[in-house]
Amino acid sequence: MTLRQTSDSDVAYRAVIEEGDATSPLIVVCEHASHLIPTDWGDLGLNAAERTAHIAWDPGALNLARGLARALGAWLVHAPVSRLVYDLNRPPDHAGAMPARSEIFDIPGNAGLSLADRATRTEAVYLPFHADLHALIARRLAHGVVPVMVTVHSFTPVWHGSPRAVEFGVIHDADPRLAHAIVAAAAGSRLRVALNQPYSAADGVTHTLRLHATPYSLQNAMLEVRNDLIATPEAAEAMAARLAPVLTRAMSATPAEVA
Amino acid sequence: MTLRQTSDSDVAYRAVIEEGDATSPLIVVCEHASHLIPTDWGDLGLNAAERTAHIAWDPGALNLARGLARALGAWLVHAPVSRLVYDLNRPPDHAGAMPARSEIFDIPGNAGLSLADRATRTEAVYLPFHADLHALIARRLAHGVVPVMVTVHSFTPVWHGSPRAVEFGVIHDADPRLAHAIVAAAAGSRLRVALNQPYSAADGVTHTLRLHATPYSLQNAMLEVRNDLIATPEAAEAMAARLAPVLTRAMSATPAEVA
Repeated sequence: MTLRQTSDSDVAYRAVIEEGDATSPLIVVCEHASHLIPTDWGDLGLNAAERTAHIAWDPGALNLARGLARALGAWLVHAPVSRLVYDLNRPPDHAGAMPARSEIFDIPGNAGLSLADRATRTEAVYLPFHADLHALIARRLAHGVVPVMVTVHSFTPVWHGSPRAVEFGVIHDADPRLAHAIVAAAAGSRLRVALNQPYSAADGVTHTLRLHATPYSLQNAMLEVRNDLIATPEAAEAMAARLAPVLTRAMSATPAEVA
Repeated sequence: MTLRQTSDSDVAYRAVIEEGDATSPLIVVCEHASHLIPTDWGDLGLNAAERTAHIAWDPGALNLARGLARALGAWLVHAPVSRLVYDLNRPPDHAGAMPARSEIFDIPGNAGLSLADRATRTEAVYLPFHADLHALIARRLAHGVVPVMVTVHSFTPVWHGSPRAVEFGVIHDADPRLAHAIVAAAAGSRLRVALNQPYSAADGVTHTLRLHATPYSLQNAMLEVRNDLIATPEAAEAMAARLAPVLTRAMSATPAEVA
């Protein structure tokens, strides 16, 4: 076990941006795309299995997000670093931003972080990602395209020992328009769909939406797919093919404003 | 008249940040601090008097903001470029971000801007300023300090030919707590105080608050002082001395959460 909790303050793990069509409003965001723990942070005291478990990332979410983006010509923005280093969907003062415990796992390398440790991770991971996402949104607006933002996540089928029946959760923050439209559009998908399941804004899971979509009144929603349904690249691709027309119908039902 | 409406995309007019006390929650923001039009944009077709009129900046606002920040140990963030190039308190798709007309003045250099012109200004002025302000907030949060944000503006005593009686306006967006507390605290200031005057959120003047304060649930308010009251550095300093205790009382009445 090697722990080094500080890194050079000029290290910046930028967002990965995969370009979409010039006219596409849709920006697909995947904050928990990667389980990579950069060498700056050693192994955080976890074994190899723990470092690739759902506590480190959302398994399948990037494949699903990329499949959706490609099917729809959308822009894709994803994270290069594990949420165990910094959970990009949490503000810097939130305990869950650098969790010392996640579900049933202790994360030794996140125990007792100093303010300096927290600041270093904020600088290296949180700020570059959100600066890049904000810049993309502002550039799209300046070019006359009002974005629609969808964040893509996966959840574990068993949580604290309890199985979860929901297969596809759609979560909203202050503006429920797109989430409601997605739930309605998913009625024919034969997925077990639920609004604000397995989490809701009250659980603090809508930080990215609040930070980027709400200030510009962008239509937005958070998608959660049960990770056993997208466990292989092929399964994720198949799920993307099922959900792409759902998003298309939902976006037609909630037309974007003209910039 | 020289117009060159594009600049190198790597030009970035960073926010000017004047450091406050390590433990101070208060961040004072002045988006309309400067009437500087960088040479990239020539003179925008305006004469010298027009380029230093209130259409170009908020006269006195930086002196007031700096006086408040120094009196309170607060952090100060101000703009290095005129709002005629880019109004930092407007999103990139808002006509007023690069206004072709302001009050009774046409701005020839802003007429008929192309999307490329708008994108260049967004890149050079809007994105660097807001990235720097966002970074400051995130760093303060990571260091355990929950910021309080106050933006400082000035308004012209005569608007479209009509005199304005209000002297000190306090404007809120979704969260009115701090604005209400400031109005209450200003009762003994002998200023003509008004809530949501001479503008309100409905006029689109709270973009900075929405972009930075609301996502983190920071207490926030926008201050507007009539510019004839802060026309000289001495007058602005005197106004800062009057308003600093008002802000102190208001912040005591609306205690910040502990990070």
